[in-house]
Amino acid sequence: MARINEEYLKLPGSYLFADIAHKVEAFKRAHPETEIIRLGIGDVTRPLPPSVIAALHKAVDEQATPEGFRGYGPEQGYAFLREAIAEGDFAPRGVEIDPADIFISDGAKGDLGNFQELFGRESVIAVTDPVYPVYVDSNVMAGRAGTFDEKAGSWSGIVYLPCTAENGFIPSLPAKRPDVIYLCLPNNPTGTALSRADLQRWVDYARANECLILFDAAYEAYIREEGIPHSIYELEGAREVAVEFRSFSKPAGFTGLRCGYVVVPETVRARSAEGRTVALKPLWNRRQTTKYNGCPYIVQRAAEAVYTPQGRREVRENVDYYMENAATIRSGLQEAGLEVYGGVNAPYIWLKTPGGMDSWTFFEVLLHELGIVGTPGVGFGPSGEGYFRLTAFGSHENTAKAMRRIAEAGHWSTWKKG
Amino acid sequence: MARINEEYLKLPGSYLFADIAHKVEAFKRAHPETEIIRLGIGDVTRPLPPSVIAALHKAVDEQATPEGFRGYGPEQGYAFLREAIAEGDFAPRGVEIDPADIFISDGAKGDLGNFQELFGRESVIAVTDPVYPVYVDSNVMAGRAGTFDEKAGSWSGIVYLPCTAENGFIPSLPAKRPDVIYLCLPNNPTGTALSRADLQRWVDYARANECLILFDAAYEAYIREEGIPHSIYELEGAREVAVEFRSFSKPAGFTGLRCGYVVVPETVRARSAEGRTVALKPLWNRRQTTKYNGCPYIVQRAAEAVYTPQGRREVRENVDYYMENAATIRSGLQEAGLEVYGGVNAPYIWLKTPGGMDSWTFFEVLLHELGIVGTPGVGFGPSGEGYFRLTAFGSHENTAKAMRRIAEAGHWSTWKKG
Repeated sequence: MARINEEYLKLPGSYLFADIAHKVEAFKRAHPETEIIRLGIGDVTRPLPPSVIAALHKAVDEQATPEGFRGYGPEQGYAFLREAIAEGDFAPRGVEIDPADIFISDGAKGDLGNFQELFGRESVIAVTDPVYPVYVDSNVMAGRAGTFDEKAGSWSGIVYLPCTAENGFIPSLPAKRPDVIYLCLPNNPTGTALSRADLQRWVDYARANECLILFDAAYEAYIREEGIPHSIYELEGAREVAVEFRSFSKPAGFTGLRCGYVVVPETVRARSAEGRTVALKPLWNRRQTTKYNGCPYIVQRAAEAVYTPQGRREVRENVDYYMENAATIRSGLQEAGLEVYGGVNAPYIWLKTPGGMDSWTFFEVLLHELGIVGTPGVGFGPSGEGYFRLTAFGSHENTAKAMRRIAEAGHWSTWKKG
Repeated sequence: MARINEEYLKLPGSYLFADIAHKVEAFKRAHPETEIIRLGIGDVTRPLPPSVIAALHKAVDEQATPEGFRGYGPEQGYAFLREAIAEGDFAPRGVEIDPADIFISDGAKGDLGNFQELFGRESVIAVTDPVYPVYVDSNVMAGRAGTFDEKAGSWSGIVYLPCTAENGFIPSLPAKRPDVIYLCLPNNPTGTALSRADLQRWVDYARANECLILFDAAYEAYIREEGIPHSIYELEGAREVAVEFRSFSKPAGFTGLRCGYVVVPETVRARSAEGRTVALKPLWNRRQTTKYNGCPYIVQRAAEAVYTPQGRREVRENVDYYMENAATIRSGLQEAGLEVYGGVNAPYIWLKTPGGMDSWTFFEVLLHELGIVGTPGVGFGPSGEGYFRLTAFGSHENTAKAMRRIAEAGHWSTWKKG
């Protein structure tokens, strides 16, 4: 019989969001009268912007005619979209990106999960903790994580960079040099962003120590404050050491339409066994041409529409809408006496669970006593224990209602489960 | 510096179809007056069927409203499509497939490239030769192929099953037992199909030897003759040993829209290092939920439309249209004195190059003397040397024109480059 990839057996059985869904379903069956408010999963709720809808209809019509029909497209994406991205996402920030360094995909989750394929199995990876589970799990599958310590909730082979209230959720440089560092900024789940100076320290560290930074900028559109880099390439030296991942999901509502991209500058290199440096771009190109057949033409036309004046305006309105929720949640929780982080440059609000409760207990309290669904912080890594994530992707109405329920439940700073 | 995955360095530099594109471009620059007829790449040319277009427009409109908007869908695909597939592709052939065993994707290329991730690195894979390059290249990247012998054009770690005119393009059972066998039927590139009895021998072999069959049925819709299985699950015992890959690309023209699926029956198992059997379905589910975020909702609605009475009729018309080309090419080549295979149950025509020419020489002759682009057989593997592939995906007009050019060039059975 074929032998399986043993690494899969090491993964804990179930997936965080599946666990949550089961608990919510069980509660609904037991309490069908409770109106549940979901502030758990980071999925958008507003419909696709009109300019995107119009571009989709137009592209669909093209696909209906012999002259307009497009079959296989370039695996790397169509030039029209790669150029619109270079022009729209980078040039306005003074960053010159060659469209040929941009690889269009069906979303950042796949790109972030797949990029590790380019590295040797012995490569050591570092992640901030808490963290988006895909970085860790994809490396577990590739045999880079060692063994899982159930009690600690961590992998022996992975370098964790704790982000807690103590360090303001700003990761410290690692004590032991890793080969590859995943950074997500603005951060999911903590909602924290890094200043230019803080991020420059990471770029400098990577250059000095020959590390590679995989920079997940999926939430870049939510940055509201000055002085926070939107792209890692705004920083000196980054294009030697950083690959950037972007997504149309959160700014433009593409979670169900699927489009993202990776920037792999010509100058980013890694090393072969015999010690010579090898550019990553041709390797990623080879990976994509072998295992991927390109993002649908109609979806790439939809993404292109995001860069029109109307598209930009509509995206900004959507982001503004969600960020109003973030402000509602922040102030609601603070008034209720809770310690709150994030939500200023990101659609995620991270809070300290009250009364020393663990994350899952707080999850149960919110669900059973208030009918609110959130995400236990420990689900994102061991340093997430004692924290909890709420998202700004609900409607204004439901978000406000959730905050009223929390306010009415009493003063949380001295709150105990009752 | 991070260490790269060394296996990538073993891959021959360029990709077959990229090489061909360069040669065609160079020829066009030198001979702008020649009208080139492309019968090379297996991409469809007819527009998407009206029922698919209508379903796309409808789904796009849903995405424009708060009530109809769908964000993240299930990574495995929506139930409506999984049920339509079980009902439409399998039930009519007496095959009962649980919709829960069907995993929707953005196409067969990705699925076929990714599925090997579930196997241990030491697993031995077998491929028919010639073969779709993705099977081999994805296993090279995973470190399962050993070293490449430039002269032989083959990998030391891969079991090749030659398919040539001598064995009627029906692969013989391997002398050495492999763990995983890739079978593509109807075959790309040879255009050959296997009878029920011939395929049953493979299923029996796999059961007796504890092998796994990865069955690529992307061209199933092109089968015209009775007695040829459309699904491997029509055969006794197959659901213990086979995973089936399907695509909407070739039947319904989805090459630029991207949708496919994999069937992983609950009963298909492989073995862990300690010897216990492990079901593959949960492993594939884990792979997909970790690294994939689902096929776009609008594309899944488009695929669903293929199973409506109108959709079926339109797909049949498209396939009929292409199969008329296949007949034109077959008879055209035969009348010109060439030895021809395939093209009866597949959109590919495989021919023996005349006068003992090698595949690339014949490519140059066809391009430079007749302005016709095809694919050199050796590009698909060492046993493809001395063969050549033409595809039925052109227009009737161009296909007939290509055959006239070949007829006018003279009697090919005694033909020499002149």
